[in-house]
Amino acid sequence: MKILIMGGAGMIGQKLLNLLLKKEKLNNQKISKITLFDIIEAPYPNNTNIPIQSKSGDISDIDVSKNLILSKPDIIFHLAAIVSGQAEQEFDLGWDINAKGSWGLFEAIRHQGENYCPRLVFTSSIAVFGAPFPDKIPDDFFTTPLTSYGAQKAISELLLADYSRKKMIDGVSIRLPTICVRPGKPNLAASGFFSGIIREPLNGQEAILPVNPDVRHWHATPRAAAGFLVHAAEIDTSKLNDRITLNMPGLSVTVQEQIDALERVAGSDVVKLIKHQPDPTIQKIVSGWARNFDTKRSIELGFKAETNFDEIIKTYIEDDLKK
Amino acid sequence: MKILIMGGAGMIGQKLLNLLLKKEKLNNQKISKITLFDIIEAPYPNNTNIPIQSKSGDISDIDVSKNLILSKPDIIFHLAAIVSGQAEQEFDLGWDINAKGSWGLFEAIRHQGENYCPRLVFTSSIAVFGAPFPDKIPDDFFTTPLTSYGAQKAISELLLADYSRKKMIDGVSIRLPTICVRPGKPNLAASGFFSGIIREPLNGQEAILPVNPDVRHWHATPRAAAGFLVHAAEIDTSKLNDRITLNMPGLSVTVQEQIDALERVAGSDVVKLIKHQPDPTIQKIVSGWARNFDTKRSIELGFKAETNFDEIIKTYIEDDLKK
Repeated sequence: MKILIMGGAGMIGQKLLNLLLKKEKLNNQKISKITLFDIIEAPYPNNTNIPIQSKSGDISDIDVSKNLILSKPDIIFHLAAIVSGQAEQEFDLGWDINAKGSWGLFEAIRHQGENYCPRLVFTSSIAVFGAPFPDKIPDDFFTTPLTSYGAQKAISELLLADYSRKKMIDGVSIRLPTICVRPGKPNLAASGFFSGIIREPLNGQEAILPVNPDVRHWHATPRAAAGFLVHAAEIDTSKLNDRITLNMPGLSVTVQEQIDALERVAGSDVVKLIKHQPDPTIQKIVSGWARNFDTKRSIELGFKAETNFDEIIKTYIEDDLKK
Repeated sequence: MKILIMGGAGMIGQKLLNLLLKKEKLNNQKISKITLFDIIEAPYPNNTNIPIQSKSGDISDIDVSKNLILSKPDIIFHLAAIVSGQAEQEFDLGWDINAKGSWGLFEAIRHQGENYCPRLVFTSSIAVFGAPFPDKIPDDFFTTPLTSYGAQKAISELLLADYSRKKMIDGVSIRLPTICVRPGKPNLAASGFFSGIIREPLNGQEAILPVNPDVRHWHATPRAAAGFLVHAAEIDTSKLNDRITLNMPGLSVTVQEQIDALERVAGSDVVKLIKHQPDPTIQKIVSGWARNFDTKRSIELGFKAETNFDEIIKTYIEDDLKK
């Protein structure tokens, strides 16, 4: 069982790598090799039982995808992407990597020959949805992205679905919730505060809350995201009836509910490190984001996310705090 | 007001040309020139008040689109496509023309420079939907195409929406119902009988009905389709709130209702020319097609289709019978 992780240097790619190393198997088959690919060489632990290789390159070059596919990995996780903000600023770069890059990968697989038809798990995003939408978005809701990133993800989903319907690839697209608590340093993403108001106080630092505490959003942990990817690699895709794109389960909470959970888990002194400084720009951006989903299909298919925010905070403490 | 019709040799392209020649204006501005483009040179009437030019080429070549855009048409109707059956058989050809061809056209417009931002009306299709779906498909229903043609149309919609959101093009995508009564000779398309059972009897010929009379489907005339295109060229796109893709109105009727209307309009002797020869293959294909839509948005925006099937038959008699 050979595995390729495209986007292996990213936070989710690294979480997935660690989960695979712990599991050692996928679909009851021993993992024999893991190849990491990214724009930079991805780090990986030394002295693992499974051989790991790290490669770097630019997937807007179809020859890069062709070379990666030469060894015929059995399972491909395609997480590689230019992030939302950058794709919005750099129009051509976003389209080249996020849409043409995915398409080139799918073409490389199709043209590999010898009935090669690997499982490919593609990470899409709730950015395929654009306001206005119902409070709870159903599985059959339409995609009207309000960012180029969202459009690129929606197009990659449609491509993968058609290549899969034609039995050229055995694809599954999973739309991830916002990842919370994201480990690492604060960043300038508009969504950064959802993690920041938990992560910074737990690290003894102040955090800025730029929106009203009644803002509701849709979350899952990095651990849950890695679990979604593994489960998507293992499910019976014949049950999907050509509808291979799935909204992943998540937890819908308000910012106030996040803060209340932090107080329960870590105490009121920690919560005092959150400073409310309303920022109308961020408040406006966030008001256009999805708040809640009814993810009936993915739950029936066995995908599992956290069910309360205390659990999300405890997962961060266990997996990432002071590491 | 310069107009470009991509796909000008097709049946809808020709109907649109004739409607524009009759109107002589769009948005209260005199039409000064019409350019027809297609894979073959499109025919056009002699001695018109408006100068017409016919060009041919292959839109999978981006230089073809660049050349067409050089004269900066004010309104572009993009109807050019490989049809559904052929796109399903010839995978690369379908993707090259229907997806990369559209993308190349959008890129050519974007790079024309000098703030060029024409109205572009793209004809999409109800093939973006795939069964199962509700009896009446709402405006916010998701796109899960079951043909490559449907996937290519859905992707072109997403591209046009993002280029429009970025103010590179002023786009509108309209999803046409099945066109009925399609003029001309019988064809082998699975949907051909919807028109055939009306057209052939009215021309004194036998027609085969391969499905049960309780099959329900979604129709609009060629005249209505040309009207949709003109209306889409004239509407205020700022009202669309970045949701530029619209399900066009139509008429949902059963085959029995079609036959009853034919009897009212043309008498029982004409109806006797319809021979019921069930074909399980066609019955199965058709059972996966959309039956009815709730097209609230497009109706509010002023798009108009026929409201009964007698009107659809009379329109065929007026516009196309024995011409």
